[in-house]
Amino acid sequence: MTDHADRRLADHARLLVSCPDRHGIVAAVAGLLSELGANIVASDQHSTDPEGGRFFLRMEFHLDGLDGAREELERRFDEEIATRFAMTWRVSYPSEPKRLALLVSRRDHCLLDLLWRWRRGDLPCEIACVISNHPDCAESVAGFGVPFHHVPAERGSKAAAEAQILGLLEGRVDVVALARYMQILSDEFLVRVGVPVINIHHSFLPAFVGAGPYERAWERGVKLIGATAHYVTAELDEGPIIEQDIQRVSHRDTPAELARIGADIERTVFSRAVKWHLEDRILVYENRTIAFA
Amino acid sequence: MTDHADRRLADHARLLVSCPDRHGIVAAVAGLLSELGANIVASDQHSTDPEGGRFFLRMEFHLDGLDGAREELERRFDEEIATRFAMTWRVSYPSEPKRLALLVSRRDHCLLDLLWRWRRGDLPCEIACVISNHPDCAESVAGFGVPFHHVPAERGSKAAAEAQILGLLEGRVDVVALARYMQILSDEFLVRVGVPVINIHHSFLPAFVGAGPYERAWERGVKLIGATAHYVTAELDEGPIIEQDIQRVSHRDTPAELARIGADIERTVFSRAVKWHLEDRILVYENRTIAFA
Amino acid sequence: MTDHADRRLADHARLLVSCPDRHGIVAAVAGLLSELGANIVASDQHSTDPEGGRFFLRMEFHLDGLDGAREELERRFDEEIATRFAMTWRVSYPSEPKRLALLVSRRDHCLLDLLWRWRRGDLPCEIACVISNHPDCAESVAGFGVPFHHVPAERGSKAAAEAQILGLLEGRVDVVALARYMQILSDEFLVRVGVPVINIHHSFLPAFVGAGPYERAWERGVKLIGATAHYVTAELDEGPIIEQDIQRVSHRDTPAELARIGADIERTVFSRAVKWHLEDRILVYENRTIAFA
Amino acid sequence: MTDHADRRLADHARLLVSCPDRHGIVAAVAGLLSELGANIVASDQHSTDPEGGRFFLRMEFHLDGLDGAREELERRFDEEIATRFAMTWRVSYPSEPKRLALLVSRRDHCLLDLLWRWRRGDLPCEIACVISNHPDCAESVAGFGVPFHHVPAERGSKAAAEAQILGLLEGRVDVVALARYMQILSDEFLVRVGVPVINIHHSFLPAFVGAGPYERAWERGVKLIGATAHYVTAELDEGPIIEQDIQRVSHRDTPAELARIGADIERTVFSRAVKWHLEDRILVYENRTIAFA
Repeated sequence: MTDHADRRLADHARLLVSCPDRHGIVAAVAGLLSELGANIVASDQHSTDPEGGRFFLRMEFHLDGLDGAREELERRFDEEIATRFAMTWRVSYPSEPKRLALLVSRRDHCLLDLLWRWRRGDLPCEIACVISNHPDCAESVAGFGVPFHHVPAERGSKAAAEAQILGLLEGRVDVVALARYMQILSDEFLVRVGVPVINIHHSFLPAFVGAGPYERAWERGVKLIGATAHYVTAELDEGPIIEQDIQRVSHRDTPAELARIGADIERTVFSRAVKWHLEDRILVYENRTIAFA
Repeated sequence: MTDHADRRLADHARLLVSCPDRHGIVAAVAGLLSELGANIVASDQHSTDPEGGRFFLRMEFHLDGLDGAREELERRFDEEIATRFAMTWRVSYPSEPKRLALLVSRRDHCLLDLLWRWRRGDLPCEIACVISNHPDCAESVAGFGVPFHHVPAERGSKAAAEAQILGLLEGRVDVVALARYMQILSDEFLVRVGVPVINIHHSFLPAFVGAGPYERAWERGVKLIGATAHYVTAELDEGPIIEQDIQRVSHRDTPAELARIGADIERTVFSRAVKWHLEDRILVYENRTIAFA
Repeated sequence: MTDHADRRLADHARLLVSCPDRHGIVAAVAGLLSELGANIVASDQHSTDPEGGRFFLRMEFHLDGLDGAREELERRFDEEIATRFAMTWRVSYPSEPKRLALLVSRRDHCLLDLLWRWRRGDLPCEIACVISNHPDCAESVAGFGVPFHHVPAERGSKAAAEAQILGLLEGRVDVVALARYMQILSDEFLVRVGVPVINIHHSFLPAFVGAGPYERAWERGVKLIGATAHYVTAELDEGPIIEQDIQRVSHRDTPAELARIGADIERTVFSRAVKWHLEDRILVYENRTIAFA
Repeated sequence: MTDHADRRLADHARLLVSCPDRHGIVAAVAGLLSELGANIVASDQHSTDPEGGRFFLRMEFHLDGLDGAREELERRFDEEIATRFAMTWRVSYPSEPKRLALLVSRRDHCLLDLLWRWRRGDLPCEIACVISNHPDCAESVAGFGVPFHHVPAERGSKAAAEAQILGLLEGRVDVVALARYMQILSDEFLVRVGVPVINIHHSFLPAFVGAGPYERAWERGVKLIGATAHYVTAELDEGPIIEQDIQRVSHRDTPAELARIGADIERTVFSRAVKWHLEDRILVYENRTIAFA
């Protein structure tokens, strides 16, 4: 990245807001930003219902010398706007990219696709590490200059494995992405990890929740197969959906062929969902996502 | 249609075969057709497994003077081929288009789309009649010169209504298509009607079986909605899938908007599935379809 | 529509703005709307370049008693905002739906699709009339209760035909849509008609500009065919593109089959583009469109 | 691959036929295969016109002990069938995978996608080498255990560079694929290389032939961008199209963003086209392809 780009990035911020909908929110927010000298370069909003619903806002803005103005900006926003409108809010600074950890099992297609996009500068993040219950991907990951940790998930040692993973992640990551990690994480792990966890499921949810979706898709004789990226919650494959896509299949395709075709959708949907998360485009509300994509 | 086209149609036939897979089937079938002077103009085949699986074949062929040769063709095929390979088979003659009945409730999008394709010559069938439990579509149907029957489906009179429908259909149709008919047909009806029944379901099956799929899609927060055309069996929304398609939606779309967007997919999938059925492109095996489309 | 919906529509407006980009635009606009008591229910913005580019804004807002407040709203917006930011702007009121005229030749698929959607309440417009150089669609149009005018386009009488069409349209329409109207409109017509004209072209522009796109697509052996809705300008098929879509085809498809498959894309793209125009979602800048869809 | 899979592969063959259409072709071909004890496991056919057109056939068959029977099979096919029907034909043996060379410049997305698929066993070929006019991809290629050759393409040394490339390829490859190789190959090169050359062009051909397609797509304001895989002929971007696909874009996307989005389509279309070629699914006729995909 050039110095010029660095400087621009340094002056860039994203504001995320969620609050009860009422008159004057945009005017108040835009008014303060304008007063502070910021230029709004992108803005998305959504209301579940203008009368008594919930309002969501994502604004990207540019402010010369943002670094020195951050404290004032956040303080005044909190005092003058957030309290008045009962907002949940945060400001995110692209100059401080999120730290991502990847968990993977044997199949490498989601992992490699994401690492490759990261290397070419399409994913705004640092990659803290890759953790796998198999050693298979070690060499590929090394080629990207990313730390790789092999944490076996033997039957009976799940608690120990999760503790080891938590030890590797603690304080070092802002988001975890499961790039076809075939172990089910315990509720305790999800609580203790303390950051969002994104999963890619190899079906068009809510069809084929759980194991063996391609086999079951074949049995049901569907004409399209899909993949779904979602935030992980305690209930298996029931978390808020971030993104989905599908591909056409036919009676000629065996379950193995469905898995091969599906791999292309999985990696695309997975990379897209992670990218949107990293760019603060996804807000969660009542187990659904608002995707300002 | 011109005389020329009529003559070509008259000499055209489709052969549908299903049998245990083994060596020499294509050679035997093609050999007989060649002997009889037929030219194979299209051919599709599928085997669930070359070793011990089931084999499916669809051949379109052209034979000058087919009308006079039909009896010999069918007799020789039965004697020389079908018995030898333990085939289930039939020959279908495009010069005898299938007779289609349409059942509909209030929403007219699937019905109108199909009638309009039929009028412009894209659907090779006769339309015997349209039957509805509401009078709403009567005028539209009249515009196409198709008989319309209003058979109310009041609570408690279902058996009588189904009997009346059966009376209208009996001996007059080769296939029934439910163009968003919102009544569940009884098992007895399905047995007595004696012809295939095609339904369009407004979800991407097996997701959202049953009532209210758009509301449930909205609740689950899916990013794509779909429609599924399938043959009706005794088990609700569980019959063999003929065709499916999807459309992208977002957090902005209310359930009503999903229904509006979905209507476009429903009519497309419905018309495509009916067309394929009319052209003998769909074979059913173990609750899945082989779609030679 | 219920009284309740009418009342809501009556209090609804859309603001469209285009101006040089600079700090404070959103704050100023949102500030005035807030002062007037309006609630912004949707907002989209785009900047070609935050430094020295052009800024585009579409805001939907709700204001109780809008009817009585319109004059003040427009006057204050002009005086306090528009002049300051050198804006091109307009406010559009959904309670005054646009008046649409449709021109068509023989093929009815785009016309009927649009009329169906309009009858279902999906297209917010009045349909002033349908004009055709052939009588073929007269009966279908009559079924919708829409006036139909047959204006033949004989060789040599083009000027007279165009004059007759202008006479039918003058002062009665806000937008004209060419639903597969196979006559090229003269530059003079385009100037004199004085309202936007939307065309549907049966190719994926800029591929296959001009006549016979399906034949030429077949000759080139493309694997996808498309359709393009665009505003008509003096240069044939070169106007700003509103929407495009494609469909997969194969070596099996003859030019006639491409035309049949393409009809489905044409009508979808056409209806979508007209709907977006009617909802004031399309802004034109330097022969491209900003589509707030 | 297991021994079992190896054995099955060894007994597998593909027959490709092109000839004037007439009665009895399928019967004759299937008859001979049946006589020889082969089982047809897949069959596709196409006729440009049953009356006086050209006929194309692709049959996959299985024959126990094929290796020992190849000579007899080919001899009898030539003598008994090919001559009689004036066929152009060949038999291809999956046990002898094609040898592929890849040419690439700086952008690695098509190259890596193909190498990943190859490593996973999805592409039935040997990769002879990767040749590039830049050293950038050397390390990535090394990770796959594939030879990499850097052949600079300086201004004025084109003939020498092409001669060097020809020296590397001569007698060692069955197909060449240009994975975003940004040099135009001379007619002489195409003649001397003597094997098919597949190119990926970053537009939806025939739109945006030549240089800078994303910039030109942006200027024209298209709403979809595409990629096209085609066989290279002397005329730039005019060779037979193997496969195409598109992706939706919007007014928000800059040319750089179009290139980023387009990279995903390019690699998908490229890998698909190369795979189909390797599986003998593509026949060329009059600058179009018959794609038995």
